[in-house]
Amino acid sequence: MKALKGAVLLGQSGGPTSVINASAAGVFLTALDNENITGVYGGVHGIKGILNEDFYDMSKENRYELELLKNTPSSSIGSVRYKLADPKVDDTDYKRLLEVFKKYNIRYFFYNGGNDSMDTANKINEFVNNSGYEMRVMGVPKTIDNDLFGTDHSPGFASAAKYVATTFMELYHDATVYDIPQVTIVEVMGRHAGWLTAASQLAKEKGQGPDLIFLPEVPFDIDLFNRRVKEVLKEKGKVLVAISEGVQTADGKFIPELLGEVKRDSFGHAQLGGAAHVLAEDVEKNLGVKVRAIEFSLMQRSAAHLASRVDVEEAFNAGKLAVEHAVAGETGKMVGFKRLSSKPYKMEYVLLPLSDVANTEQKVPLEWILPNAEGLSSEFVDYALPLIHGDAGVTYEDGLPRFAKLKKVRVPKIK
Amino acid sequence: MKALKGAVLLGQSGGPTSVINASAAGVFLTALDNENITGVYGGVHGIKGILNEDFYDMSKENRYELELLKNTPSSSIGSVRYKLADPKVDDTDYKRLLEVFKKYNIRYFFYNGGNDSMDTANKINEFVNNSGYEMRVMGVPKTIDNDLFGTDHSPGFASAAKYVATTFMELYHDATVYDIPQVTIVEVMGRHAGWLTAASQLAKEKGQGPDLIFLPEVPFDIDLFNRRVKEVLKEKGKVLVAISEGVQTADGKFIPELLGEVKRDSFGHAQLGGAAHVLAEDVEKNLGVKVRAIEFSLMQRSAAHLASRVDVEEAFNAGKLAVEHAVAGETGKMVGFKRLSSKPYKMEYVLLPLSDVANTEQKVPLEWILPNAEGLSSEFVDYALPLIHGDAGVTYEDGLPRFAKLKKVRVPKIK
Repeated sequence: MKALKGAVLLGQSGGPTSVINASAAGVFLTALDNENITGVYGGVHGIKGILNEDFYDMSKENRYELELLKNTPSSSIGSVRYKLADPKVDDTDYKRLLEVFKKYNIRYFFYNGGNDSMDTANKINEFVNNSGYEMRVMGVPKTIDNDLFGTDHSPGFASAAKYVATTFMELYHDATVYDIPQVTIVEVMGRHAGWLTAASQLAKEKGQGPDLIFLPEVPFDIDLFNRRVKEVLKEKGKVLVAISEGVQTADGKFIPELLGEVKRDSFGHAQLGGAAHVLAEDVEKNLGVKVRAIEFSLMQRSAAHLASRVDVEEAFNAGKLAVEHAVAGETGKMVGFKRLSSKPYKMEYVLLPLSDVANTEQKVPLEWILPNAEGLSSEFVDYALPLIHGDAGVTYEDGLPRFAKLKKVRVPKIK
Repeated sequence: MKALKGAVLLGQSGGPTSVINASAAGVFLTALDNENITGVYGGVHGIKGILNEDFYDMSKENRYELELLKNTPSSSIGSVRYKLADPKVDDTDYKRLLEVFKKYNIRYFFYNGGNDSMDTANKINEFVNNSGYEMRVMGVPKTIDNDLFGTDHSPGFASAAKYVATTFMELYHDATVYDIPQVTIVEVMGRHAGWLTAASQLAKEKGQGPDLIFLPEVPFDIDLFNRRVKEVLKEKGKVLVAISEGVQTADGKFIPELLGEVKRDSFGHAQLGGAAHVLAEDVEKNLGVKVRAIEFSLMQRSAAHLASRVDVEEAFNAGKLAVEHAVAGETGKMVGFKRLSSKPYKMEYVLLPLSDVANTEQKVPLEWILPNAEGLSSEFVDYALPLIHGDAGVTYEDGLPRFAKLKKVRVPKIK
């Protein structure tokens, strides 16, 4: 198919990762070098930026700073949590998007995000192309949760996994240093899928990880938890626990709900987080030993200094390939990863229909999860270990990371 | 003075740092190469190991593993929080220590720790040498709090400071990504001295740090806190706060005590920690915006992967020099650092009388602290920035740090 003459627009969406900007660098740098592309824009706060005709002109940035984006955490052009309605129910936003795409002659739209974002990209692709306006829409995957369907893994996961495994190894040394009984409970992000919590198994493989690992894939049983903590404490004098923020009991209760008070947001949804603190108080009360709760909080998704080289490269390439394939004629696809082998690690990039990816969650296979919270099987280790390899090559200045500084020049609004 | 023929004993004490083992490596490797030294022992859990005649024989370890100690966090031979009585009041422990020193012909005792430990080392030195048993006692400084008196800085601080500054830069990117008002409150360790919290200024210098910095050196004023948060929120839409766990009001109340319930330990002492969470709840209630509390917890003192090269080298050299000076005849001294210049960074190692160092806290000079929680002056930056330089050169294996694995062979007990 013929390349379309027009502008490229990238939107970033959802929670940050260490490498979402690496994908942006892949999109921007590839697009800036392509003769068919007449403008390279970044949507200010994702889809909201499009609705507001609010774009950064990436051609005004220094090439060096765009290169530094590869190692700059989070979303440099701003993210958003905005879910478009189903166009069959309410197509107001879609009409507006189409209007803006036309007005600025945007012919390539790239959306970098997780499940929801791939659903959004899919709907935009269908709506816009059904309207007769020719535009190519490609999804670029991104999530520390690693729950995107159809791809072997997603950019962002590997770096977060490296953070989790490395930090567990370091905490292991800290949490076992005194000759007193001690329980340390560490909470890891992951709403429905336990991939990131499972990464603590990589530390366990080195003999420097958690004793017990609790994933949301397995219904949480407080009696099992208490029994196992007591057993390990008796045997070793120290217990290190990895627990996903998203674990729930068989009847759907999160830990704060199970053991204490639950905080609700303005929509009445139970707020996650706090599982470790609530459990720690309970264990301290029950066992009378020193207990510490630790949350990896935002660090696990923004520790770019500890990103995996594999992850940074794959994230960059996902952005790059999205542009190349779109220019070559593809639309409605997400760049995915297909693993060819784990030892040695070999992967090929594939294109997946957005409609297949959207809204389906990929969880840790139950057969990889050992009973009694013992951790993960060797299948998981073989899967995850190759992904965390290599130093991401952060540039340092004064002993601190030199992150990208963008000028953020706005594209003038067309009257 | 003549070198004494006998064994070396190292004890590690107090809270972990990223480089306490680097000092241990300095002691062990130097002692193993010295012909006057007949044995190189590590006290299992510091002073407790001596009281129990429980030592590791470091000569049984592989040299390669001892080298890896330089980049292994925490205390590999075990730490302890055990404070000896004043020998004038109760000299039971001192008599027992003397007995053990004699029994194992220990002629060199090195104690690696903070204020309390230097006090302990001083008392042991006086007691043992007053008894007529010839033994050399040297202190090796260690504390992330950087509050040891008489030395320009202490090993452990620089690496923790590098963690704090780097992580603030990364959090800055994460915490400003959405287009909604957001307050993020980050709690940093530091009971009485704010050096480590002040290190967040290094991120602020890069335009990627906290808006407001609260140190324990300045009485905490909740009205000022609320006013400043509101002002920054209005101006920028986002607020990033660094607060020391140890901040207190003018009348001596910690934040959990001021705003909520305070947890007490078994001695009735108010437990620190939780300041950020308590403040976050309060701000959320007052301002109705999204607020997140983050604790750097044990990560800030054990993130060896992010240690500063300057710190690792100085920590190693402090241990090495302690051995060399002791063999040459010194006793009752701590190895300290004297700064000659900051640009370029030049420092010389000095020996300080343990009696001068013990029990005096070195705090952040008040004239370095800007009013209205605006942060620290350029004097602080000039002081701290050279210390966080350089990559510590961690060895990696499978994408994860390769920490030292000690065999931990016990010294046979003498009947």
